[in-house]
Amino acid sequence: MHNPDFTLSAGPTFASARTLAALGSPIMYHYDPAFLATFHRLEGKVKQILRTNGDVILMQGEAVLGLEAAARSLARPGMGVLNLVSGVFGKGMGYWLRSTGANVHEIEVAYNDAVDPGVVAGYLDTHSEIELVAVVHCETPSGTLNDVARIGPIAREHGCLTLVDCVASVGGTPFEADAWHLDVCVLGPQKCLAGPAGMSLVSVSERAWAAIDDNPQAPRSSYLSMLDYREQWLRCGKFPFTPSVSDVFGVEAACDQLLEEGLDASIKRHEQAARVCRTGVVAMGLQLWTCREEIASPTVTAIALPAGLTDVEVRTHARERYGVMLSGSQGAGDLIRIGHMGPSTRSLYPIVGLLAVGRTCADLGVPVQIGAGIEAAMDALASNQPVAT
Amino acid sequence: MHNPDFTLSAGPTFASARTLAALGSPIMYHYDPAFLATFHRLEGKVKQILRTNGDVILMQGEAVLGLEAAARSLARPGMGVLNLVSGVFGKGMGYWLRSTGANVHEIEVAYNDAVDPGVVAGYLDTHSEIELVAVVHCETPSGTLNDVARIGPIAREHGCLTLVDCVASVGGTPFEADAWHLDVCVLGPQKCLAGPAGMSLVSVSERAWAAIDDNPQAPRSSYLSMLDYREQWLRCGKFPFTPSVSDVFGVEAACDQLLEEGLDASIKRHEQAARVCRTGVVAMGLQLWTCREEIASPTVTAIALPAGLTDVEVRTHARERYGVMLSGSQGAGDLIRIGHMGPSTRSLYPIVGLLAVGRTCADLGVPVQIGAGIEAAMDALASNQPVAT
Amino acid sequence: MHNPDFTLSAGPTFASARTLAALGSPIMYHYDPAFLATFHRLEGKVKQILRTNGDVILMQGEAVLGLEAAARSLARPGMGVLNLVSGVFGKGMGYWLRSTGANVHEIEVAYNDAVDPGVVAGYLDTHSEIELVAVVHCETPSGTLNDVARIGPIAREHGCLTLVDCVASVGGTPFEADAWHLDVCVLGPQKCLAGPAGMSLVSVSERAWAAIDDNPQAPRSSYLSMLDYREQWLRCGKFPFTPSVSDVFGVEAACDQLLEEGLDASIKRHEQAARVCRTGVVAMGLQLWTCREEIASPTVTAIALPAGLTDVEVRTHARERYGVMLSGSQGAGDLIRIGHMGPSTRSLYPIVGLLAVGRTCADLGVPVQIGAGIEAAMDALASNQPVAT
Amino acid sequence: MHNPDFTLSAGPTFASARTLAALGSPIMYHYDPAFLATFHRLEGKVKQILRTNGDVILMQGEAVLGLEAAARSLARPGMGVLNLVSGVFGKGMGYWLRSTGANVHEIEVAYNDAVDPGVVAGYLDTHSEIELVAVVHCETPSGTLNDVARIGPIAREHGCLTLVDCVASVGGTPFEADAWHLDVCVLGPQKCLAGPAGMSLVSVSERAWAAIDDNPQAPRSSYLSMLDYREQWLRCGKFPFTPSVSDVFGVEAACDQLLEEGLDASIKRHEQAARVCRTGVVAMGLQLWTCREEIASPTVTAIALPAGLTDVEVRTHARERYGVMLSGSQGAGDLIRIGHMGPSTRSLYPIVGLLAVGRTCADLGVPVQIGAGIEAAMDALASNQPVAT
Repeated sequence: MHNPDFTLSAGPTFASARTLAALGSPIMYHYDPAFLATFHRLEGKVKQILRTNGDVILMQGEAVLGLEAAARSLARPGMGVLNLVSGVFGKGMGYWLRSTGANVHEIEVAYNDAVDPGVVAGYLDTHSEIELVAVVHCETPSGTLNDVARIGPIAREHGCLTLVDCVASVGGTPFEADAWHLDVCVLGPQKCLAGPAGMSLVSVSERAWAAIDDNPQAPRSSYLSMLDYREQWLRCGKFPFTPSVSDVFGVEAACDQLLEEGLDASIKRHEQAARVCRTGVVAMGLQLWTCREEIASPTVTAIALPAGLTDVEVRTHARERYGVMLSGSQGAGDLIRIGHMGPSTRSLYPIVGLLAVGRTCADLGVPVQIGAGIEAAMDALASNQPVAT
Repeated sequence: MHNPDFTLSAGPTFASARTLAALGSPIMYHYDPAFLATFHRLEGKVKQILRTNGDVILMQGEAVLGLEAAARSLARPGMGVLNLVSGVFGKGMGYWLRSTGANVHEIEVAYNDAVDPGVVAGYLDTHSEIELVAVVHCETPSGTLNDVARIGPIAREHGCLTLVDCVASVGGTPFEADAWHLDVCVLGPQKCLAGPAGMSLVSVSERAWAAIDDNPQAPRSSYLSMLDYREQWLRCGKFPFTPSVSDVFGVEAACDQLLEEGLDASIKRHEQAARVCRTGVVAMGLQLWTCREEIASPTVTAIALPAGLTDVEVRTHARERYGVMLSGSQGAGDLIRIGHMGPSTRSLYPIVGLLAVGRTCADLGVPVQIGAGIEAAMDALASNQPVAT
Repeated sequence: MHNPDFTLSAGPTFASARTLAALGSPIMYHYDPAFLATFHRLEGKVKQILRTNGDVILMQGEAVLGLEAAARSLARPGMGVLNLVSGVFGKGMGYWLRSTGANVHEIEVAYNDAVDPGVVAGYLDTHSEIELVAVVHCETPSGTLNDVARIGPIAREHGCLTLVDCVASVGGTPFEADAWHLDVCVLGPQKCLAGPAGMSLVSVSERAWAAIDDNPQAPRSSYLSMLDYREQWLRCGKFPFTPSVSDVFGVEAACDQLLEEGLDASIKRHEQAARVCRTGVVAMGLQLWTCREEIASPTVTAIALPAGLTDVEVRTHARERYGVMLSGSQGAGDLIRIGHMGPSTRSLYPIVGLLAVGRTCADLGVPVQIGAGIEAAMDALASNQPVAT
Repeated sequence: MHNPDFTLSAGPTFASARTLAALGSPIMYHYDPAFLATFHRLEGKVKQILRTNGDVILMQGEAVLGLEAAARSLARPGMGVLNLVSGVFGKGMGYWLRSTGANVHEIEVAYNDAVDPGVVAGYLDTHSEIELVAVVHCETPSGTLNDVARIGPIAREHGCLTLVDCVASVGGTPFEADAWHLDVCVLGPQKCLAGPAGMSLVSVSERAWAAIDDNPQAPRSSYLSMLDYREQWLRCGKFPFTPSVSDVFGVEAACDQLLEEGLDASIKRHEQAARVCRTGVVAMGLQLWTCREEIASPTVTAIALPAGLTDVEVRTHARERYGVMLSGSQGAGDLIRIGHMGPSTRSLYPIVGLLAVGRTCADLGVPVQIGAGIEAAMDALASNQPVAT
């Protein structure tokens, strides 16, 4: 089995050589002073990326760890919680919230749509018992964005805390933890940062800490415990468990590259790649999955599966014949996805994705206009503002 | 802050160039067929290393994740559990077990001693309500071994399941999951395998799965859930959460090197390194921490702190002046530790540890016989059977 | 300056992750037994790749070193030498040959053509004073192949030695040092092997050694000396100069990958990539540089520059706007080149080259049919026999 | 064959992880603008390290290439040349010089001694026909230094050019190309810079260029040609041959680390390591090779072989039994060598060398006082000014 020639998935995405070198740099003891210095630097860099002055905790597990930890730390029996559901991850958040005994309300929309902030405001106006709003910024499996920039302030105005899954949005679309009044934010390094998947990067506001402190059921003495982390590491300099030294090196390198480029430049890069890709999809005669383009995330393009094809067929053929690894739907619907995350946003990578999708569809019997699609996408690319090369 | 010249800690220990190259190899999508093949291969290799034909699950978090998951999965309210405590990790296991509502009995010994298997047998003879025995094979913080080869069969004879923390023993001392009737075993890759710290490698017997299935409180829909892992991955080929691709590559490389060398050769290598180191410690006029050498783990040498010194002083001085990173006690007692794990067992590494410890003590005012210690340790090294170089 | 996104040059080409890891593996002393073992293994692998049972010498410098060393070692004052010139490297070989005082005859053709073996035979029939025939297999700067499979036997029949520049052909098109009676062959690792540029891999037949021995002017006590190399290394195990340990590791990894895939598979891979690329070039409305396609090397596609464009313009624009690094002509004519060497032959890489060339031409005012070109190239790719993925 | 645990050779020495990562970074086309920028940066860094404002040329081959190129470029038939011989490399320089037809005078001393600058001055006073003085700064095979700081000005006062082999001195002992009036200086990256062996870093003064221009026999159209390099690269931006991209990346990383640390700090580090090592050698009862310690190079310690032992025996045993790779004499005499170059100067590495040498001697029947030697060396190490850790 040859390695893929092109990884255009929706995360883990492929990483830069610099990030890979950092991942492969010598492992050292976690209390080595050089490692401790690295760890502290990384905390500061994550704060810059999430745009927060609050605490940041670096949990040692894929972003799902941070999301579950946040849900179980914030929600408590009987608490009124509003969970916004526009996709698979929003749905999953509901399970965790309910398992704490919280009283979970949900606003759910189709998985090719986004939650209307106005509806959230209206719901909170009439449900003063709500104390916490949970929202997924980018629903990666379906490629949509919820408008957290508006939902955050609405929640704050109604006195609610917010729990935000920004795993696959930060770095690819604007995100402001403090300015948008977001209390707990969970970022995954394997998406737009193009780092390894092994960490959860979590910001916590003072208000969030107060709520977690007051929650007798918040995990304690547990791998899921944010309180242990604060108590032992933030306050006493003892790790609650051994951090994965290699992951920390890799994530720092990924953050460095993002900060050196600048968040604004990175966001623009993601937006341009998405535009190029979507122009090509439409011109090729395929359909975008999202009900309207304004809610499509710049970080991933979901394409509606042509009738008669399965996502497994498409992905297997694209990988076997064209060496391109695409993402499936993870249960969000009949779609396949081309990721635009980190380096896969650069130059011709979106076109490579189009070539693989288009020719695969053709090979599998679906008429597509590959030439027209590529022409249109190349036009879009040529009209981009120059990327920093 | 310059990187350490020598990492002689008790884990994470330093890794081979081959393992580092694997950690830094290209990140791919976790459903890429090349990654899936790797993941399945790794499961097989971990089975070989743990010597089991049972299931192996590869959880995405440091070994503490696997230990907590195992404790919470196996223990249930009211269950009789015998927890053996001879150090910090045994003590910690008790907290998790009790938090499930289990009825936890403990046999506790001093942290420079090991639990007598005969005492375990006697206790089980008189406490038929015990259904689970939890034991730490190598208590890394204090450098001791419990005799799991005997405790496992005793537990089985009494109809008990076993939960074994073999995080820091496997690869450095004999270990046989199936032959010793061990039901859940948790291994950490950052110790004798000299891999990254980001994974828990867990074996589960059929008997253990049956007990977990019957435990209504076993974690479900959680990062801590072994049941999710079985249901989704082992049975359906869906990952319950994204594995850290880099860690998987790194751990496979570490396993490959261990299996190519052979477990027996690796164990001998660890035993010889420990003997060299301890010969030097004694000849230098310092004292071993363990109450008797038979229970000292081949994977780490704990040295009693000379009167008047703190472990922070010793470790800071050794690192600053001699570039050597040693381990402290993690609360197990007044000791410092030289790790013998993976490559740090090879050739002159134990001597480097002795030089750093000895000269640091001398610099801090403790009279030690460095020359005599090194001579004796070199004699021991010279009398070793040749290591494969 | 961002690194290139795609390196589709005619060498150095981009390398696999495995080759890069080998290049970055720990440097050791050149008389370390582990390095000596590597060096000897590499000699054997190069023999397999060149298909020779003769000697192989691994000179420490880019392939030009080996070519010059071979020319100065074989040619002597007054010797009759036939130099075949169909491009820049053939031309350059003439300078070295003449500087030795040899009596150099040349058959020269246009740089978009190849030398006719029949003409060579005819020339040798009528010039019995010729003792050495020098020929370039792949003229990389212009993308053409000379028919060394026929020229070698013709030379041998006429009692001539052969000096073959196979720097950029081996691995991408059939090559047989012994079967074709080739006496000195010089291969560069940075082409179809996709390794580092720092070595010359040279085969030497017994007949060639005899001629060099008899040449009083053959370099001795020199970095250019093949005789030193034989005397000191092949016969006495002393390196005439320190080999670059890193390069040796990198080249061995490159050879391993080629041998594991198999030479025949690798050649097919190069041929298919070239066919895909050329189909696209023509369908796009651009012109191939070579006067006829049979003589085009599978390892590089030379495209005639559209009127009004310079190669610097095209390459600069493609690199700046599309992140693709192409090769220029190195003085061979008005052309630009897309390399198909090593990994750049795989899957969609030739298409990426077409996209960059096509859109760059369009951006610079040349009408090209990008869509039609890509459609045709994708058709060709889809009809390929599956590559091993 | 396991890789060495410790490489304490006199070059190639082991490299830092950062240098290795650079060596393993993606290969790109040599005319890629990112590579061109790197190449130009490296020229500037080499100037800083050699302390020159003159030209620097980066030849693609081990330092012997640069040395031979310099000798053949500067010396011409009938030219009066004074070659200073205090070891193997000085001797070898004589062969190259004589092969040009120059009239070579030599001042030769025993290979455990250095050339007296006063003798050089006296010789030049009485031999006004001398136009060029060739001198080796550090004779690596025997571990001695010639006083180039004095010889350079003496040569200039007498109107002579200088050709300096500073391959193994720069970075480990003071060196000033311009201040000392040195015309052509050849540095190897695999010594105190701890980089790869594949390049020659050569400085050339205007006076040297003038002499080379005037030399009708200076290599032209050759891999050995400095004139080609100036003509094509320095003046026209065309590489005379493809540079090894990987080596350039590796050497730049090595230079960066040296410049970031500072030349003075690096020199002090080498001097301290040598002092520690030599203290131990003597205290162990072995003998230093050099006739007096003032002329011993800080970059390598040569130890006289005890009677009855061969260097092959010692090195083989040390490598097989203790995993330590030492250097032999390369024909300079009955000695073995411990290198102090780059990272092998740090912290306990010199002690590791002493352990391997001492115990090997003991194992082979030579009485040595290992304990006393290590005690003394550790005392010396403890009295060092702190190295930057």
